[in-house]
Amino acid sequence: MKILVVNDDGIFAPGIGHLVSVAAKFGEVLVVAPDAPRSGQSHAVTLTTPLRLQEKGTEGNVRYFSCNGTPADCVKLAVKVVLQGKHPDYVFSGINHGSNAASNTIYSGTVAGVVEGALSGVPSVAFSLLDHSMQADFEPVLPFVEKIVRACIGSGRRDICWNVNFPCLPEGRIKGIKLCRLGEALWAEDAVEREDPSRRKYYWLEGDFVRTDKGEDCDLAYLEQGYATLTPLKTDWTDYAALERLEQEFPF
Amino acid sequence: MKILVVNDDGIFAPGIGHLVSVAAKFGEVLVVAPDAPRSGQSHAVTLTTPLRLQEKGTEGNVRYFSCNGTPADCVKLAVKVVLQGKHPDYVFSGINHGSNAASNTIYSGTVAGVVEGALSGVPSVAFSLLDHSMQADFEPVLPFVEKIVRACIGSGRRDICWNVNFPCLPEGRIKGIKLCRLGEALWAEDAVEREDPSRRKYYWLEGDFVRTDKGEDCDLAYLEQGYATLTPLKTDWTDYAALERLEQEFPF
Repeated sequence: MKILVVNDDGIFAPGIGHLVSVAAKFGEVLVVAPDAPRSGQSHAVTLTTPLRLQEKGTEGNVRYFSCNGTPADCVKLAVKVVLQGKHPDYVFSGINHGSNAASNTIYSGTVAGVVEGALSGVPSVAFSLLDHSMQADFEPVLPFVEKIVRACIGSGRRDICWNVNFPCLPEGRIKGIKLCRLGEALWAEDAVEREDPSRRKYYWLEGDFVRTDKGEDCDLAYLEQGYATLTPLKTDWTDYAALERLEQEFPF
Repeated sequence: MKILVVNDDGIFAPGIGHLVSVAAKFGEVLVVAPDAPRSGQSHAVTLTTPLRLQEKGTEGNVRYFSCNGTPADCVKLAVKVVLQGKHPDYVFSGINHGSNAASNTIYSGTVAGVVEGALSGVPSVAFSLLDHSMQADFEPVLPFVEKIVRACIGSGRRDICWNVNFPCLPEGRIKGIKLCRLGEALWAEDAVEREDPSRRKYYWLEGDFVRTDKGEDCDLAYLEQGYATLTPLKTDWTDYAALERLEQEFPF
């Protein structure tokens, strides 16, 4: 069994090390991860800059490569270059330092890594911990990661694209895993204005992630209550309900 | 009425000029577009580089800004800086030089521009022409763009996130507009290997977009037949059918 592990925080982020330690219990692991953080890169692919792969070494059944591209690039190069066109059996992404719940999913490079896998029919799971810190404590979530990896592999299904988030809680305090939908939330952002030495303005996007979803059945609600959440994702973005309605409203 | 126009080919691409010419018939237009091409940037946002906005001038009821960020950044800066926190009434993106049909949607910066609008409840429409060339002929599609803009505004709905693609056909040959789902397709890619002068390998992703969808009711099929296609998109990626199934299969 060949497992590809990717992330968006970069190959040196502690989170990916923890995911690798779990994945290595299940099979041969190939890590192809960005050479530096690529947070917020969504499903970007690199088309105008040459992509580089650097072999970083092997430890037991784990082989490491870094890549100067995005998480989606990493998956593509893993398949095309390292695996010489053969797809891995599974793609696991993370463990991300920070939430990929609700609409964060859309901005996430971690999630894009698994969407890229799922687009090729590879069962793929993204893992994220609600703690941005590089000192985040991943130990409490590892038994849940292992449980979910086992469920993914054990299901025998190929049509898996799961987004998993963990609350930031100490050992033994996570109440369990809830299967649930993504919540609705918004980045309530400001563009923070600064001036460079030439007195030209520039901006930093900064903001708070604000839950707008009133439902108690979404990932944001369960995470607040201390549950891990698992949401299956679609790679077909068609809004079928809107399509049906449109067919009545607009006889083009 | 305030209309925000964005794209991912950059402010100097002919396609955005054509979209502006249509949008300006309906209201005041604000253009905030990348200062250079940002194809394949998906929903990436810029978190580690300062963002810059440059006012490029005003022509009639159209005000132009370029931005050094992604399409999603452009929408955010348009709202936060230029419109001082007020959302536009509509976001239109494109006209893209090249297809954003099927799973291209996922990689597309053009589509991300409208998803960013839709996430804030702004009716948003992405337009793409199946011709990558900078010399692409947009004239044949302009009456359709106008029809769709009118339909979007006329509907009075706020929950609009439409993805529109046009076949590359001469004047009068487009058969009409089909409302349809996204098709399934794959980038059958190769990583083309090169060597730099220091004899270090690098790679370019290159590939063909291959339709894997057998259905005749998807955007790819209709585009091949000479129709323009309109697909409403969801910003909630939850796979509800899979969620229901999982609740049976995995009593975590």
